[in-house]
Amino acid sequence: MKSIDEYRIEIEKTIQSLDLPGGKLETLYSPIKYALSAGGKRIRPVLTLMAADAFGEKSQEAIKPALGLEMFHNFTLLHDDVMDKSDMRRGRMTVHKKYDENTAILSGDTMLTLATEYISMVEDKLLRNILDCFNGMAIKVYEGQQLDIDFEKETKIATSDYIEMIQCKTGALLGACAKIGALIGGATEKDADKMYEFGMQTGVAFQIQDDWLDTFGDSSTFGKTIGGDINNGKKTYLYVSALEADSQTAEALKEAFQIPAGDVRVKTVTRLYEKLGIAESAKKAVNHYSSLALKALNSTSLSDDKKEVFRKLAEKLIGRKK
Amino acid sequence: MKSIDEYRIEIEKTIQSLDLPGGKLETLYSPIKYALSAGGKRIRPVLTLMAADAFGEKSQEAIKPALGLEMFHNFTLLHDDVMDKSDMRRGRMTVHKKYDENTAILSGDTMLTLATEYISMVEDKLLRNILDCFNGMAIKVYEGQQLDIDFEKETKIATSDYIEMIQCKTGALLGACAKIGALIGGATEKDADKMYEFGMQTGVAFQIQDDWLDTFGDSSTFGKTIGGDINNGKKTYLYVSALEADSQTAEALKEAFQIPAGDVRVKTVTRLYEKLGIAESAKKAVNHYSSLALKALNSTSLSDDKKEVFRKLAEKLIGRKK
Repeated sequence: MKSIDEYRIEIEKTIQSLDLPGGKLETLYSPIKYALSAGGKRIRPVLTLMAADAFGEKSQEAIKPALGLEMFHNFTLLHDDVMDKSDMRRGRMTVHKKYDENTAILSGDTMLTLATEYISMVEDKLLRNILDCFNGMAIKVYEGQQLDIDFEKETKIATSDYIEMIQCKTGALLGACAKIGALIGGATEKDADKMYEFGMQTGVAFQIQDDWLDTFGDSSTFGKTIGGDINNGKKTYLYVSALEADSQTAEALKEAFQIPAGDVRVKTVTRLYEKLGIAESAKKAVNHYSSLALKALNSTSLSDDKKEVFRKLAEKLIGRKK
Repeated sequence: MKSIDEYRIEIEKTIQSLDLPGGKLETLYSPIKYALSAGGKRIRPVLTLMAADAFGEKSQEAIKPALGLEMFHNFTLLHDDVMDKSDMRRGRMTVHKKYDENTAILSGDTMLTLATEYISMVEDKLLRNILDCFNGMAIKVYEGQQLDIDFEKETKIATSDYIEMIQCKTGALLGACAKIGALIGGATEKDADKMYEFGMQTGVAFQIQDDWLDTFGDSSTFGKTIGGDINNGKKTYLYVSALEADSQTAEALKEAFQIPAGDVRVKTVTRLYEKLGIAESAKKAVNHYSSLALKALNSTSLSDDKKEVFRKLAEKLIGRKK
């Protein structure tokens, strides 16, 4: 197995050498090139390549499917940004802002089909299993996005519902990345499913950590403005677990969210979270889902040194920018 | 083989018995049920069932893939209606009008993945071929839609470019419907490709006929208001071939399109079309592409009575509501 950075570089090279049509089709394909060129950690395709190598030294055979998974991820970002009316992502204009909404919709659709094409570039005997895993994951991601949208209109969300939502919206894709890589590597169905569990629970831990960082992180390393979720009235893990903690404080919290967006609102909500020990309970949840991920990883037939590389990846993802 | 109506009824039944999730996922799936319940001729899935029976009495095996193709068609309608800001379709509110734009985007995405799942419900030995045909067709449809959008901003479009656009936007899907059905029926690759050609050219003839009907049709049978394309400044076959016909009239035509939308504009443009004999040249083009479709059909190994059923389907599609 190579290092995480080496896999990331391999993915970057593949993306840069991607031969998409130009000419009169430029208006359809240049937004796709733009979206893919934004960089980032490329955690998802890296996980696929790692799993393919860990189970059978097959990262070369996994490059196109890994690209398909990164393409899928970026497709969801294009459409989510339209739905959320987000103008910026990774310090650049979002596709619908740089081009227009119709372009983001149609180029996004194209990315989903391209992703399916790349995912299908596997041996015949693996095709059905990998395709089913991919499509099943995609449906979960849409369902997760819909639940997330619906939550915005609800006043009371159970923590268990929130966890189910992020299992779909964030967990399923990381799970599929690990499983598809494992299958390409020649893993047994059992090991591949355990790798899915590893990726999925890592995704859940990552999302809760991300919620935590948005309120309690350090703006200089987080890369986003602290308090963004509070100002946007986002139903995060912090918010839903605070509502469950204590009915009196829940009322105070709902009132605090009526304060106009700005420093006062962020400080008031943060103080209520602190009063309820929400920072600690979120950290506990991160540890809980991380340990579920590691438990699944440990139960695979992989050697200890290979498990260690996946452990490092999970740490890189979850432990980032504390 | 059954009659066209019997196949249509079979498709309707399959759509009505479709078991999509409800409960808290209702917000994602009810727009899909709504979109699919709008009825229509179901020409595309009927073509798939017919081809599967014609080549090997396999329409039962083709039901799910046929549903996938109808699902794909409806997915493109959802997203196209958002892009075109169309509020009505088949006498009902469009999905983004009845629900909202975000719903139309996300439910549309879900339909594309569901379509891919249904398409994949074929024997293992057919999976790759059918999946490649489906994905390749989908890319063509997006490219056609993009070309169509780009045309709206251009002042001069060659008729050949217009034909290429509708080959992608309308032809490719009908081609794939015929080919996928044929493959399920056990057709040779050669016959399946000829069926693609039959479907594709039928689609082109249908689109030109549709352009003709929008200006020269009878409003009582056409189902849409006559002159809609002229009032919307749509670059139809009539418009692009008129621009090519005569440079002086081309200028007059461009000026006529500056008249505010309404009866005067429709009448002025229609008179210019008549002066140039555009109605006749459009009819000639319809006949040309219809004969290309029939030539492809005739070159297959199908028996004459089976060819006759496809001929009737093409007639039903193209010869409608003259």
